[in-house]
Formats: sequence, structure tokens, C-alpha cells
Amino acid sequence: MAGNTFGNIFQLTTFGESHGPAIGGIIDGCPAGLVLDFEAIQRDLNRRKPGQSKIVTARQEEDEVIWLSGIFQGKTTGTPIGFQILNKDQKSKDYSHIQSTYRPSHADMTYDKKYGIRDYRGGGRSSARETACRVVAGAIAKQLCSSIAFNAYTSAVGDVVLTIPQDKLDFRLSETNDVRCPDSNTASKMIARISEVKKRGDTIGGVVSCVISNVPIGLGEPVFQKLHAELGKAMLSINAVKGFEYGSGFDGTQMLGSEHNDSFQADGSTTTNHSGGIQGGISNGMDIYFRVAFKPVATIMKVQDTIDQSGTSVSVQGKGRHDPCVVPRAVPIVEAMAALVIADFYLLQKIQQLQP
Amino acid sequence: MAGNTFGNIFQLTTFGESHGPAIGGIIDGCPAGLVLDFEAIQRDLNRRKPGQSKIVTARQEEDEVIWLSGIFQGKTTGTPIGFQILNKDQKSKDYSHIQSTYRPSHADMTYDKKYGIRDYRGGGRSSARETACRVVAGAIAKQLCSSIAFNAYTSAVGDVVLTIPQDKLDFRLSETNDVRCPDSNTASKMIARISEVKKRGDTIGGVVSCVISNVPIGLGEPVFQKLHAELGKAMLSINAVKGFEYGSGFDGTQMLGSEHNDSFQADGSTTTNHSGGIQGGISNGMDIYFRVAFKPVATIMKVQDTIDQSGTSVSVQGKGRHDPCVVPRAVPIVEAMAALVIADFYLLQKIQQLQP
Amino acid sequence: MAGNTFGNIFQLTTFGESHGPAIGGIIDGCPAGLVLDFEAIQRDLNRRKPGQSKIVTARQEEDEVIWLSGIFQGKTTGTPIGFQILNKDQKSKDYSHIQSTYRPSHADMTYDKKYGIRDYRGGGRSSARETACRVVAGAIAKQLCSSIAFNAYTSAVGDVVLTIPQDKLDFRLSETNDVRCPDSNTASKMIARISEVKKRGDTIGGVVSCVISNVPIGLGEPVFQKLHAELGKAMLSINAVKGFEYGSGFDGTQMLGSEHNDSFQADGSTTTNHSGGIQGGISNGMDIYFRVAFKPVATIMKVQDTIDQSGTSVSVQGKGRHDPCVVPRAVPIVEAMAALVIADFYLLQKIQQLQP
Amino acid sequence: MAGNTFGNIFQLTTFGESHGPAIGGIIDGCPAGLVLDFEAIQRDLNRRKPGQSKIVTARQEEDEVIWLSGIFQGKTTGTPIGFQILNKDQKSKDYSHIQSTYRPSHADMTYDKKYGIRDYRGGGRSSARETACRVVAGAIAKQLCSSIAFNAYTSAVGDVVLTIPQDKLDFRLSETNDVRCPDSNTASKMIARISEVKKRGDTIGGVVSCVISNVPIGLGEPVFQKLHAELGKAMLSINAVKGFEYGSGFDGTQMLGSEHNDSFQADGSTTTNHSGGIQGGISNGMDIYFRVAFKPVATIMKVQDTIDQSGTSVSVQGKGRHDPCVVPRAVPIVEAMAALVIADFYLLQKIQQLQP
Repeated sequence: MAGNTFGNIFQLTTFGESHGPAIGGIIDGCPAGLVLDFEAIQRDLNRRKPGQSKIVTARQEEDEVIWLSGIFQGKTTGTPIGFQILNKDQKSKDYSHIQSTYRPSHADMTYDKKYGIRDYRGGGRSSARETACRVVAGAIAKQLCSSIAFNAYTSAVGDVVLTIPQDKLDFRLSETNDVRCPDSNTASKMIARISEVKKRGDTIGGVVSCVISNVPIGLGEPVFQKLHAELGKAMLSINAVKGFEYGSGFDGTQMLGSEHNDSFQADGSTTTNHSGGIQGGISNGMDIYFRVAFKPVATIMKVQDTIDQSGTSVSVQGKGRHDPCVVPRAVPIVEAMAALVIADFYLLQKIQQLQP
Repeated sequence: MAGNTFGNIFQLTTFGESHGPAIGGIIDGCPAGLVLDFEAIQRDLNRRKPGQSKIVTARQEEDEVIWLSGIFQGKTTGTPIGFQILNKDQKSKDYSHIQSTYRPSHADMTYDKKYGIRDYRGGGRSSARETACRVVAGAIAKQLCSSIAFNAYTSAVGDVVLTIPQDKLDFRLSETNDVRCPDSNTASKMIARISEVKKRGDTIGGVVSCVISNVPIGLGEPVFQKLHAELGKAMLSINAVKGFEYGSGFDGTQMLGSEHNDSFQADGSTTTNHSGGIQGGISNGMDIYFRVAFKPVATIMKVQDTIDQSGTSVSVQGKGRHDPCVVPRAVPIVEAMAALVIADFYLLQKIQQLQP
Repeated sequence: MAGNTFGNIFQLTTFGESHGPAIGGIIDGCPAGLVLDFEAIQRDLNRRKPGQSKIVTARQEEDEVIWLSGIFQGKTTGTPIGFQILNKDQKSKDYSHIQSTYRPSHADMTYDKKYGIRDYRGGGRSSARETACRVVAGAIAKQLCSSIAFNAYTSAVGDVVLTIPQDKLDFRLSETNDVRCPDSNTASKMIARISEVKKRGDTIGGVVSCVISNVPIGLGEPVFQKLHAELGKAMLSINAVKGFEYGSGFDGTQMLGSEHNDSFQADGSTTTNHSGGIQGGISNGMDIYFRVAFKPVATIMKVQDTIDQSGTSVSVQGKGRHDPCVVPRAVPIVEAMAALVIADFYLLQKIQQLQP
Repeated sequence: MAGNTFGNIFQLTTFGESHGPAIGGIIDGCPAGLVLDFEAIQRDLNRRKPGQSKIVTARQEEDEVIWLSGIFQGKTTGTPIGFQILNKDQKSKDYSHIQSTYRPSHADMTYDKKYGIRDYRGGGRSSARETACRVVAGAIAKQLCSSIAFNAYTSAVGDVVLTIPQDKLDFRLSETNDVRCPDSNTASKMIARISEVKKRGDTIGGVVSCVISNVPIGLGEPVFQKLHAELGKAMLSINAVKGFEYGSGFDGTQMLGSEHNDSFQADGSTTTNHSGGIQGGISNGMDIYFRVAFKPVATIMKVQDTIDQSGTSVSVQGKGRHDPCVVPRAVPIVEAMAALVIADFYLLQKIQQLQP
């Protein structure tokens, strides 16, 4: 209700501010008996963590998970999985200069007005540091749905756009470069673009695309919990996201029905996939693919006009360590949120059809 | 859980198939004492109803609401509001030819596989007829938030795109033409485009834009229930929607932080509004605006290749009465869903800050 | 959230006032493919309906269900089941004398203060007429869990108490008398007691006991949704209920651990069943049994002191048709609520343990 | 859904096993700006903690709360409050003898069958140690509803029953003796009874009563979330509880309507209070009072017959440190759960009636 829980059956509740002692969460509803691959979880956290390359923030965090409950002898027990990640390299003094100043396009003003409290330390709860907990839960969700593949990748950085369609990509290449684009040529251009923007103290937006393959037919709950509606909500809940489209997306609005419709083949697959693997809010077995728009990071190393809590005009300039482009680190977050949605519907579907 | 309820506090649960005796719903959590304007509710229903103009389906439905509970002497009582709308002009025989055939890009196959049941009458539950119930509840939500304005309009039909930005439009003009575009010049082109497509037995996609004005600061529940995440889910739950973007949207991915950031002015407003009225998932008092992508209607009057339930290749051709473009009738649905989200957060916000 | 929905997976939402045009509900989450026995549903409604015997209210209602959705060719489709029951014999004028008077031990005052609205017609929403919808949904829940037996019966009317323990009863005898007590001797005394009380214009309380047999091991969700906690909530949500105990209940507080503990036998059953079929909030396969306390009906045909809305002391006397004892009609309601709880946990359990 | 979350608005989610590294929880939905009294929280924890007197278990735990988020400068911020309590004195070897044995009337067998996993360390998740987290959240809930008084006390230990009615008691005396009975004479007898039972290696049940005073009129959500239904669920979710009754309770079943009805006085109060402060599921401003039945603790220091996982008959004898009677330590747990329910409805009520 207050927004810190995600999911219906496979539920994640998170807590923590970027500059408090720890962040963490509780995963409830994970079935018992799942043998956890802890290294795989850490691998996803490492893809998200700060300090991993030259094009991300220099903050250093090990982001190691401390497991507190719900696991016995390496297996889930069916009881809630409590976990936490310590904040080790927080530097709250970096934020003393904005104690009463609202940073433009941040959540400073809105949190202050909503709650009547100004927790000025690094964005407090609104920091994307919270997404580390999503990656933990998402990595477990992936293991629960081990036959389903989740492949996110960077498909645009500013106007550097990957033009190869998703079904022609080799996703194994995404992790071979710092920006997580599966085409090395485009990746180089993206990295150059980010480096150049960073040098100027500026930031830039981008797009993360994601393909979910091998999804069983039947996932998704019409009417209000259509599969793509929950995927959309999941993606839009990630910091800095401004848009979501799946299948033909916004381009599809310019098509005719006769062009857009996906003909069925005898095996139940479709010749084209403008539907993006979802029809009527329910997975149809084809690849689900979607695109997520990320705005440029709001913290820039340039002087900007703004106001303080009293409404006085002041100027502010970013300090501390920040990302010039959020997209490379967002790739595992997109995968994690996709996995949380799919795992939830996967479990729900077990109860929607009577056994014969 | 099974997807037929929307909202946390102000909750709508709907039932009904397009070709059953009735559709309807229960609105729970509407505060007591709200004096209802029943004509305003009917007005919104009339904007959505079939048969209203030459560019929509010819099915005739009065779409009058039968109120069953929760209202006494014209006011809400705080108890659940039960209502129904009769299906009067359903013609199930129009569907007998697709009894065992899966229509391309419809929900026929996915429903059949999900539930193991084929209710072939007019799409059954997957029909957009269900959205009439959303319009009823949304109209009440609007009255609950009477100081907030919800203005949706058609901003694109295929490649006929309205290029005037949302803050230069006179929304009173939207209802002066059949396509619900507030610019009469563009509206004429849109209507011509739809008519032409209809003549060919084809369909076409489009975009509905929406502006929510005069929203109090503080609505939205971070982390997972960010205001735009719930708006996105709400829109993506509408039939035929393929994408959602708010504020700068996908265009924002190509901007620099220094271009994209919205500077605060002394009164708390911002000079630009790339944030789309939402920062950190919480309303900031500026106009909220977003765009919703609708694909072309799947039912076309042309022969298409498909399969039947047994996997045999067959051909299918649309019969019955269908919309050549869903967008004109979708305008009030977009407003309704926006109002449901805002009303829910409006009520939730009453409990998030202690009174001094 | 506003209290008109019950259940997590198998969900019932109800609407309707006793003197409005209809009551009804939506059952969401019922799996597809369930062949419904409509006569069995009506049979349970008939056990609850007014006018069925001399010891219940004389109001005449057919209580026939009008099915509106979610069923096709006699089977559930997986979509929400909308239904309604018309109010035919309501006599609102019977209530004009209490338009501004608060009846003692009714919900008149509390509804008025909570909602700021006085819907004085027959208790409005607070009337037990609403429970007819529960019986409809409960009857479907029973069919979903067809191997589980739900047997409720009257075990006390005032100080006329059935002393035979639940495992010595023949539940088929419960329906052979008007009071629904499976022991004919005790039943006669109960009926005599009710008749006598009725003659005096008074009312009397009683106890309904219930046994749920053949429950699979493993139902119930610790910690907060223990099986008996949800059963307790379900029973306490029925009008006029003042208490709930299961297994050894309040008597168990006077026992020693060495007396109370249930020893396991080789087949996993226990020699005694003080646990009432539930250990740690989870069913253990033994009979679940519990007792539900009902207070005497508040409407009596005697003059009572009370106040009106303005706080003026007035007197009030019951008019209209009312039950002298709620217990005989409560028996199917107790069964229905028990079935709703069990069906919900039965579905939930399908997703709590990974398949090997 | 999986049972580890309590509440609708003011929500507590807990994790942790009695013999893992820590237990803890997340409180979501606590309004911002609440100045926390940390000593009061610890005071309630001390009332629950082991080792506090001679009549409770000898396990030593400091039960100090480690606060992880949601608090800034001593005030709640509106973001989730993460907290944990370390398990310091767990002695898992005490449990090695029951690794494959099901203890009678424990949750060993049911957890094993439900989840397919046997976490034999001290009952794992089913241990009452989890209730420490409830006390933390309940203590905050009390502070949120600071004008409402929650007074639980021991009203029976076995057949030693406190006969003074709740409105004649001085609750300040409850904490003056180890058993938490507000009548010193009865307290002495209760302590003697527990000591004697303990000496024999046996255990005994009891009753905790609770009075909630100064509750605003209007709390509770009919139909399914009646105030007493949620209180009942809350109490029944506490380990070892077998029954719940409020107001006249089971005794009320033997009363006539003319005896049971509570007459209103001019100020809106009632002359008697058989309603227990709740009418129609909504608080009426009078004292809410209820009784909670606790069975004798299942772990006894005597040899008992049982089976192991393979179904072989074995004997088992309690080891480790256990409570001879759970009631003295249950008093603050009952208060905590009552406060969670009331706080939740208190917040919900803020949104159920439109401001004039």
C-alpha cells in the first residue's frame, strides 16, 4: 500500500536509504526447495554495482548479500527470505551543501512536500541504490523460472542507437563491453559518447531493451493485470524511467491492421511478432520484447538555478560521485524486474486451471 | 489477484463478457457523502459508447447504468457501489464462424490455452466492452477529485500527428469533432484517414495524449507504486495499448542532463516540464502529461491466414461491427483510468503525513 | 481495503443493502473448468433463506441467483463470476419509525458516525441479508474442494447445549429438523426454547459448531495467515458473532501440556485431537473443528430506551419480521465461510512447494 | 499472500527463524513525522523477552532493536522502517535430538509436509521468537495512536481465574508482578500454579484479557473486515492461541436479546457494554475488551510417544529452555497485535468520510 512491496505471490518488500547503515528486503512467497546459486546472485549484483568501470560512478560498494533467514542447507524453506546489503562507502558530507536546497529534477522537493521531512543524505530513499535489493530478488526469481531466459541490453545512448533487431542479436556479447550493448561496434560509439558527456560534467539518457524467451503460454491476468501492464509498471518503477513500449510499441500506431496482425502457423507460433509475445495480456509463447526509456541523470557537475526550502532562489552544483549515464547499470535492474513479474505470474498460473 | 480489481483504496472490480447478459462492477472505498452527478457519468459513457459516429462501430448500446447499491438520496454511503450495464445489441451469431478459429492478434488462442476454455462469443472477457465499467468508475473518481482536470485527446491517427504541444491546446475543442482532436484542422485529416482505412476493410492505430492539471503536490507512493508507474500500468491495461511515455518520454533519452533538468522558480513551479509533473514518482504540482500508443484494431474485413484449435491452417475474415480505429472511443477510457489512479493516490495521501 | 472483499486467490467481493433493488457479488480467482452444480448452490441458499420454517423470520425471498458472467456451458471460464439476487419482499416502510432512532445493539449509530450517512432501511448494508452472497460463493468453493466435507450444525441455543462430541455425530441428521441440530432429542428442546422466546417477543443466542473433514495436510500460511486465524476472521465477520474457538478452545487453557499434547501414530494421525486439526497454523490432516458464538438478535418486540440522532432519549420497539434466533439460518453461512477459507488456502498451497 | 505481512495501511512484514542469525521486519505505511520514543519500544520488548523472571524460559536475549532505515533525527520519514534483532543465545545443539522427530502438538510435522523441508532448529519459523518483531511494530503503533490505551493482562492460569470484571481493575498493577495479573492476590496464586507445574516438567494454559480504551467511534470496515474480525485474526495468529471472544463472548450465547442489548444514553454511551465497544463491526466509543485463550506450551520435560519423519514410533522428551506457561510473556504481544489492528483502522478511517 505504501509502495515498498512488489508482486502478488512472489513478493519483494524493500527498505533502506542510500546513506543509512544498510539496505535490504524480504522475499516472501518463494516456494520451498529451490536450491540457490549464490554466485549467480552476486554476478547480477556486480553488473549493477558502482565502481565497475570508467563510465559509471566511482562509489565503491562490495554489495555482498547478508542472508538472514528463509534458507537452510542452501535451499529455500518457504519462509520469508530476509537479507541486507551494508552501505559502506556512503559519504554523507557530500550532501551537506544541499541540506535545504532542492536539486532540479530530483525527488528532493516532492519528498519534502509529501512527507514533511527532508532527509537530504544522497536522496535518501529516492536513490537508485534501493534497486540493488531488486537485483537480489530478481536473481532468485530467475532461478525459480530457470527455463526462461531474460536478456536485457543497452540499445541506445543518446542518439547512438543500436539498429539491429532483437532477434538478430547474440546476447552473450552484451557483457563483453562496459556499456552492455551486444554489438561491439555500437558499444564503442556509446562508450565514447558517455565519456565525452562525462568530461563536460554532463549526463545523457538512453534505452534498455529486453527480450524474455521461452515463456510458457498463459502467463498474465486480464483485465487489469495484463502481463505487459505489470511489466510496464515494473519498468516505470525503476529510477529515471520515462517510457515503456512492447512489441510494435509506438511505431505500431502508424501501422494498418493488415500489416500489424501476426498470422498463426500450424505450431501455434506466429510469422511476425508485432504482438511482442503477448496477446490480450497473456503470453503466447513467442519472445516477449520491450524497450525502456531512461532520462539523463539529474545530477550534473554544472551550476543550475533552483530554490531552497524557503523558496529563495539559489544555485546548486553536483558534488559527489555520480553516473554520467544510468543505462549500463540499469541493464541488470531491467532483467530483475522482468523476472519478478514473470515469476509472480508463473506461480499464479499454477492455480488458474483445474487439473483434468 | 486474478486481475479484475484495480486500485488500493478506491477499488474497482469488474465482471462481464461482451456477449453475456450484462457487464458491471463494484466500486469499493469511495468515501461517503459524495453527491453524484449522474448526467456527467452518462456523458462519459456516451463518449465511449458504440454507434456514436460514422468512424466507430455500428453496434448500438444505450450503455445506461443500473445502480444497485451504495447510493442513498443521491449520495454515496461509503458502502460498495454495485452497478451493471445491460448488453442489448449483442449478436452472438456473428461469431459462430470463429467458434474454433483463432483470430490473428486477438486473445482467442491465449485465453484458450490459459483457461482451457474457448468462450468464442465476441472475445468474451477480452472484449473492450469491459472498459465501459472503467468509465463509470472513472467518472465517479473524477467527481471525487473535482478540483483536478483530466483532459485526454487524440494526438495521432496513423501518421496524421498533432504537432501542437499540450500546453498550447484548448481542450474544450476536443469534443467538437468525432475523432476528439482539439485542433480542428488535424481532426479533419484524422477523420479522413480513418474513413479511408475503413472503406478498405482495414484498421489503423493511433495515440491518445492526456493532461492532468491542478494535481496537488505529493501524490504517488515510491518505490514500486510511483505515480507514473501506476499511470503506466493503468494505461497498458486498456485493450490494444502498446506503449506509454510521460513527460519527455522516449525523446528524453536523447537529451543531456543540462537540457533535461527542470529549474525551480521561487513559487515552486519549474521553468520547463520535462519531468511531466512527476519527480521521484511523486506529483510536483505541474501538469502531468503522457502519451498512450494504440495498435490498429485486430479485426479486419480481409481474409487472413490462421489456425483453428486443432492446429489446422484455415483462413478467417472479420464479420460483425467493429471499429476501424479505437482511438476516438479510447479518449474517455484513458481519462477514466487516469482518474482512478489519481483518486486512489489522493485518498492514500491523506494518511501519509501526520497532522501537526 | 474497504472491507467488502474476502480471500486472497479465491476472492469474493459483495455489494448490496437489504432494502435496495438487489444484492450480489463477484467471485474472482475461481479456476477455469469447474462444472457447477447449480442445484447444490440453491440448496445452500434455501438453508439460509428467510421464511423456511416457523422459527425464522417470515420475510419471503426466493433467493434465486441470477448469473451474469464467468460461466459458459455450465463451466467456469476463469473470468470473474458476477451474480445477483433480487430483493423482492423488502418493506421499507417497516423502518420509517426508526429513521432517526438508533436501535440498541444494532449498527445504526456506528454506521451513522463512521460514514456521516444514515441509511435507515433495514440496517442497509449491516443487515445479514448480505450473507446470502457468501453462501453462493461458499457453495462454489465447496465444489472446488469437492473431496473435503464441511458440516456445520447448531450445538447450543441459549442454555440448551448439545453435549455429544463432534466425532460421535451423524451430520446427515442436521437437516432433518428446523434448528439444524444432528441430535433429534436436543433439537426438539432447542426448537421449544426458540418458540417460547419468540412468543415473548424476545430473542436468544446460540452456538454453531463446524467440522471440516478430509482436509489435505499443509493448508494455512504462517505467520499471520494461520489457518485458524483466517477461519476465525471469517466466522467473526458473520453478523452477530461474538467468539470463536477451535480444537480444545477455551477449555484447553485449563489443561496441562501433558494432557493436551496430541501423540502421533505411525500413520501420521494423532490419538487425540486437541489441536483441532491444525498445528502451527497448518492443517495436519485430522478433522478441523471449531465453535462460533452468536449473540441474541438485537431486534426485539419490546420497548427499549435509546436515543435519536440528536441525542434525545426516545423509546423504540421492533417492528417488521425478524429471527428469534439467528443460529438455524447461520449454519450454512458458517459452512460457506469455512469453504471460502479452505478453497483459498487450497489454491495457495499449489504454489508453495516446488514440484520434484 | 504467503502470510508474513499484517495490515492494510500500517503494514508489518517479518522474517527470521529462532535459531538463525537474526529476526526482523519492515514497517511500511507509518506516517511521516512521528517522534519515536525508543525507550518505550524497548520497555515492551523487555516485557516479552525471555529470562525476565523465574516463571519464564531461561534463554537470555537482550532483544535490542537495530534500526536500519525510515528514521531521521528521531522521527519517522514516511519510508519503510527496517529493523532487526540479533539471535545471540540460540543453542541449536539442543535440537539435534529432534532432527528427524516430530514433537507432539508442535508445527514440526505440518511444516515438513507443507514445505518439504525440515528446519529442525528450535521450531525455525514457527517459534514464538518471531513475535518480538510484532512487539516492535506494535509499540510504534501505540505511539501513533497515543490517545488510545491498550491494557492486556493475565486473567487466568489454568483454573486460577481472575473474577474481577475488566472495568473494576487498576491496570497499573499488572506490571507489579511476574505473571502480569492486576490483582495481587490472584497473581500470587497464578505464580504458585506455574511454579508447581514447572517443577513437574509440565506446562499449563491460560487466558490473556485486553481492554482498549478511548477508541474513536467509527473504526472498522464492514463487511469482512469488521473490527472484531481483524482483532480476532490478529490474536489467533499468535502462537498457542485457541480462542477469541469479545464483549459478552460465549457467555452471550445464553442471554436473551432483552438482557443483552445495550441501551444508549444521551451522550451516545451505553448503560451496559455487552457489545464490547463494537457494533456492526465498527467501534462505538465504549471500551473494547476481549479474551484470548492460550493452550499449554507443547514442549514438556516428560517422555512422550511420537513418530519420526519415516513414520517410525519413537519417544521424545523436551530439552532446552522453555516456558512453563506462555501467558505472562504473551501479554505485551496481545497489546502489540491490538495496536497494529487499531492503528491500521485509524489510518483507514481518515479516508472513509469526505470532509464537509
